[in-house]
Amino acid sequence: MFQSRTHTCNELRLANAGETVTLVGWYENLRKVSKNLGFLILRDFYGTTQAVIETEEMMAKLSGVNTESTLSITGVVRERSSKNAALPTGEIEVVPTDIQVLGRCRYNELPFEINRSKEADENTRLKYRYLDLRNPAVKERIVLRSNVVAELRRSMTEHGFLEITTPILTCSSPEGARDYLVPSRNHPGKFYALPQAPQQFKQLLMTSGFDRYFQIAPCFRDEDARADRSPGEFYQLDMEMAFASQEDVFAVLEDVLPPVFEKYGTYNTASKAPFRRISYHDAMEVYGSDKPDLRIDLVVQDATECLADCGFGPFEGQTVKAVVFSDFKATRKVIDKICADTEVQTGNKAYWFRLDENGELVGGISKFVTERKEQVVQALGLKPGDFVGLTAGKRLVAQKTAGALRKILGNTVEGHMTKECYEFCWIVDFPMYEIGEESGELEFCHNPFSMPQGGMKDLEEKDPLDIYAYQYDLVCNGVELSSGAVRNHDPEIMVKAFELVGLGEDDVKAKFPAMYNAFCYGAPPHAGIAPGVDRMVMLLAGEESIREIIPFPMNKTAQDVMMGAPATVDPKQLADVHIAIVKDEKEEKTEE
Amino acid sequence: MFQSRTHTCNELRLANAGETVTLVGWYENLRKVSKNLGFLILRDFYGTTQAVIETEEMMAKLSGVNTESTLSITGVVRERSSKNAALPTGEIEVVPTDIQVLGRCRYNELPFEINRSKEADENTRLKYRYLDLRNPAVKERIVLRSNVVAELRRSMTEHGFLEITTPILTCSSPEGARDYLVPSRNHPGKFYALPQAPQQFKQLLMTSGFDRYFQIAPCFRDEDARADRSPGEFYQLDMEMAFASQEDVFAVLEDVLPPVFEKYGTYNTASKAPFRRISYHDAMEVYGSDKPDLRIDLVVQDATECLADCGFGPFEGQTVKAVVFSDFKATRKVIDKICADTEVQTGNKAYWFRLDENGELVGGISKFVTERKEQVVQALGLKPGDFVGLTAGKRLVAQKTAGALRKILGNTVEGHMTKECYEFCWIVDFPMYEIGEESGELEFCHNPFSMPQGGMKDLEEKDPLDIYAYQYDLVCNGVELSSGAVRNHDPEIMVKAFELVGLGEDDVKAKFPAMYNAFCYGAPPHAGIAPGVDRMVMLLAGEESIREIIPFPMNKTAQDVMMGAPATVDPKQLADVHIAIVKDEKEEKTEE
Repeated sequence: MFQSRTHTCNELRLANAGETVTLVGWYENLRKVSKNLGFLILRDFYGTTQAVIETEEMMAKLSGVNTESTLSITGVVRERSSKNAALPTGEIEVVPTDIQVLGRCRYNELPFEINRSKEADENTRLKYRYLDLRNPAVKERIVLRSNVVAELRRSMTEHGFLEITTPILTCSSPEGARDYLVPSRNHPGKFYALPQAPQQFKQLLMTSGFDRYFQIAPCFRDEDARADRSPGEFYQLDMEMAFASQEDVFAVLEDVLPPVFEKYGTYNTASKAPFRRISYHDAMEVYGSDKPDLRIDLVVQDATECLADCGFGPFEGQTVKAVVFSDFKATRKVIDKICADTEVQTGNKAYWFRLDENGELVGGISKFVTERKEQVVQALGLKPGDFVGLTAGKRLVAQKTAGALRKILGNTVEGHMTKECYEFCWIVDFPMYEIGEESGELEFCHNPFSMPQGGMKDLEEKDPLDIYAYQYDLVCNGVELSSGAVRNHDPEIMVKAFELVGLGEDDVKAKFPAMYNAFCYGAPPHAGIAPGVDRMVMLLAGEESIREIIPFPMNKTAQDVMMGAPATVDPKQLADVHIAIVKDEKEEKTEE
Repeated sequence: MFQSRTHTCNELRLANAGETVTLVGWYENLRKVSKNLGFLILRDFYGTTQAVIETEEMMAKLSGVNTESTLSITGVVRERSSKNAALPTGEIEVVPTDIQVLGRCRYNELPFEINRSKEADENTRLKYRYLDLRNPAVKERIVLRSNVVAELRRSMTEHGFLEITTPILTCSSPEGARDYLVPSRNHPGKFYALPQAPQQFKQLLMTSGFDRYFQIAPCFRDEDARADRSPGEFYQLDMEMAFASQEDVFAVLEDVLPPVFEKYGTYNTASKAPFRRISYHDAMEVYGSDKPDLRIDLVVQDATECLADCGFGPFEGQTVKAVVFSDFKATRKVIDKICADTEVQTGNKAYWFRLDENGELVGGISKFVTERKEQVVQALGLKPGDFVGLTAGKRLVAQKTAGALRKILGNTVEGHMTKECYEFCWIVDFPMYEIGEESGELEFCHNPFSMPQGGMKDLEEKDPLDIYAYQYDLVCNGVELSSGAVRNHDPEIMVKAFELVGLGEDDVKAKFPAMYNAFCYGAPPHAGIAPGVDRMVMLLAGEESIREIIPFPMNKTAQDVMMGAPATVDPKQLADVHIAIVKDEKEEKTEE
C-alpha cells in the first residue's frame, strides 16, 4: 500500500511551514532548472501545490516518470521566497524527502495538453474524456452541476417535497418523441420503453395520495442532437403537487430557483418572487416571443395603423410591428448587421428609420414616413435620438420577426440590456384550442391533458377558441426552462375536452389507460412542472454546448466514443430477447 | 378552481377550536347515524380528520358520492365530546358549512378495501397500485425509502462526496448478469445496454481526477425475480474514493450508515465504528457463513478430532462441526424441527446430543459419545445444560451446514440472540485465487479487477492460493449489503494477475477496454463499494418482499401490470431501430 495523504493539494498555507506532510496527486509538470533543482506541480481534485526538488536523489525518483503519472510526495513545508498570490497554496512549497510513483502514465505524449483540452477536437476530447476531465476548467462544470442538483434537492426537500424514483423500464408512450425500446426476455415480441418523462407516474402518485412529489428524473428521447440537446438521456427537476393551483406551483419555484441561480450562476442577481406573469397573447404582442428575454427593456409596438398604408410596398396590407430604441448610438454598419441577422434568424426582412438628434427623419425607409411624420411620432411616442426597427407580414410573422429584432438590438447595441442577471417570468393563459393550419379544423394547441380554464362550464358554453388552458411556461433570460400545467384530473371534463376536437372516451383511454383508469377512482386536482436540469446548468455555467455540463456525454451522432457504445452484441443476446437485426441495404452508407 | 386548504388532515388540535378551516383529501368513510347525522373521515397524505355532518343540507352534498372521491370541506373546528387519543387530530372534529366534490370516484366497490390492501392478491394490488398506495401502511414504506435515500445523500455530501450521474445508455458488459439491450437508430445493428452497475464509470471518474464520488445509482440486470430481487432495476449507494485504502472506505460507511439505521430502522440500535472485521477464513470457521448474523452469540467449533471417529457412521472420515448452546430449554419437538429446517435449507443432516442438568449425556447421538465423554466435554468446553448441534461432511459442507444450524438455533430458541439491533461487520481477506471445481485449474475467486494484497511482489513470489485480495463484504444482521474492493489500478499488476490464470494483456483489454486504456494514463489507487439501497430499506422496514419498498414495482414475471409494460409496439418503431421480432415456436406456451 501507499502512504495516505496528510493534506490535499489545496490545503497548505504559511502556517504549515515546518510540518512534514504527504501529498498525493497527478504529476502535472516539472520545470527542471539543473540536474538537482526543479519545480514540480502536483495536482489533485482540490488544487495544486509546488514541490521543489533540491537533490539528485529526489530528481532520480522522477527519472523515466511521465507527467500525468500519480505520485505520493512526502516532505517538509517551507515558505516560498517568491510567492504566487494567484494560488491558494502560493505562499509555500514542499521539499520532498520521498517520492513514490502510485500509477504510471505510460505515454510521454498525450492526445492533448490537459490544461488546454477545450481547444482539442471534440471527438478526441470525448474519447479521452478521463484526460479532458483532468482539466480544472472542464471539471468545474461537472462540479457545478453536482452542486446545483444537490442544492435543488435540498431546497425541494425543505419545501416538503418527497423524492420518489419512478420506473425506468416502462411503457412505450403513444405521443411525443421517439421512444428507446428494450426488448423483453420473458415476454417474446414485447418491449419496454425508457420514459420520455415520468409524467404519467407523477400523476399516478398524486392519485395514490402523495402530496408533494419531486424527482431529479432521467428522461429518454431518441432524438437527434442539438447544441442544447444531448442525444439519449437528460434530466428534469420533475415536480407535482396535489390539491394545488397554478399559483401554488409558481410559489414553490419562485422560492427554490432564485437562491440557486444567485449562488451558482455566472451572475449573482436573480428575479425575486413573484416573477412576472405574462399572458401568451401579451408576450407575443409586447415581446414578439413566448420566451422573452426580460433583461432587454425594449418592447414591440403595433404600427399597423400608422404605417401599413405609408406606401412602402412590403407593408401593404400587412401587420406592421415596431421596436423603438431610444438614445441610439450605433453606426449604419451595425444597423445593417442587425437587419441581416434578423433576416437570417427569421427568414423575414427588418426595416428601419431614425429620428435624429434634431428630430429629423433619416435613413432606411424614412422617405415613406416623412409625409405622416407627426402621426407616427405620436403613435409610437418617438423622441429625437430614437431608432425605429420595423417588421411586417401576417400577424404572427410580424410579431416573431419583431421579437427576433428586439433581441438582436438589445444584445448588439448598448443601453437597453442589463446582462448580468437572471430574469424569470411565467408565460400563462395559453389557448386550449386552435384551428390547425393543415387540417383547418379545431385542434388542441398544446397538451390535451391540461385543465381548461373555466372547466366543464366553459367547455360547454364558450367558443373553443376563447378557452385558455391552465398551462404555463417558465422562462429565464429568453430560455424556456419548462412547460407545466394544472392537469385535467376529471374524466368527465377530459372526455368533453376531447369531444370538442371530435374524439371520444376511447381516445382518451387509448392514450394513457393507466392514468385514465386511476382518475376514475377519485383524483385530487393537481399541478406541476419539470424544469430541465441540463438547461438550467447551461444557463448557470454560461456554456453554449450541453456536452460541457454532462460528465460522460455522447457525441452528436449518439455514440459514446470512449466506451464504444452502441456496440455489436453477441447473437445469443439477441436470441435471448427474441429479436433479429434487419439488414438495411443502405447500412454501409449511412453508418459512419 | 377550488378553495385551497388551510390545514392538512393531520394538523388541527384543540387550540384550533372555533376556527373556520378548509381541509381537502379523500373521502375515506361515512358512519351515518341518521338522515342528518354522520361522521365522515377525510384522509390526506398527512393523516385523517373527522367531520361531523349535522344537517340535511350537508348530508345532501354527499348523496351519490362514493367513498375515495376527493373532497374539500370547509367548516368550524370544535372540541370533540368523545376524544380519540390514538389520533393526532382526535381531540377535535370539523363541522362542515360547505362540502365540494373535487374528484369523483366512479365506483362504489373497489378491488380491495384501502386499509386492508396488503391482504389482497399481489397482482390485484399491483394493477391498482394507485389504490394500494392510499393505504397508509403501504405508503409509509415508500416514504421511508425516500427519507432514507435523502439522508444517505445528505450524509455522503457532508462527507465530501460529490454525486455524479453516469450514463444509463451505455455498453454491453462482457461479464456478470444478462444486459438489457437498447437498439440504436443511428447505428443499425448496434445496441446500447443499460448499466448493470456504474462500476467502469466510477473508476473512470477516479482516473479523471475526481476524489470522492457517490451516486444513488440505478442498475439494471435482466434476471429473474427473487424475494429480495425485483426484476429490472434496482438502486445502489455507489461510492468510490481516490488515493484511498480499504480502511478509508470502511471509515466512511461506519460513519454514514449507523445513524441512518438508528433513525429509520425498526430497531434503534446499530453497531458503532469500527465494525468488526472478520477474515473470510474465520467467518467460515467460526460462523459457518461469510454473512454471519452477529446478533446471535453462538459460534461453530471444530469437533473433527474428538468426534469423527466416534463410531457414528455419518462422521466417519469427515470434518465435524459443533454448535454449543448453553442453558438450552427447548423441547424434543423443537430440536427435531431445528434439525429438519437445517436439512431443508442445506440438504445436509444435523445431529445433536445434550449434557443434561445433571451432566449426563442424553438424546440424539449421545450413545456414540458416551465412551469418550470427558474428552468431548473438554474439547468443546461443555457444561451441564448444554445442547450440542453437530454437522459433518467435507470441510465446506460441514461449515455451511453448521452455519445454517447456528442461525436456526439462535432464531428459534431463546437466550442467544439480541434481535432488536443492527449488527454490522466487514468480511475481509478473501482469497484472490482458487482451484476451480470443474476445471481443476487456478481461477479468480471473485473480481479479477481487485488489487491483490502484496501487489506485484506477492504475485511473483507467493503461492497463488496464499494471496488475498483487498476485497470486502459489508454484512448486517446476516444480510450481505455489498461487496467492495480496493481496485487494481496498475496495468502491470493487472496483466500479471491475469497471467497466473493463463490469460494475457489482450484478455484484460477485451474485458474493459476504456478502463484499461484510462489506467495507462496514470490512475490513482482507489477503492469503493456499493451497498444496495433496496436491501437496506428492506432491513430498515423489516419487510420480506422487495415489492413493498418500491413505489411502482414489476411483478415476478417482470411485468408492470398497471402500465401494461412490456407491450407490443408499432412495426414502424421496430423498423426505426432496425430490428425484427423472432417468432419462437414455443412462444404461445411460454407466454402467460
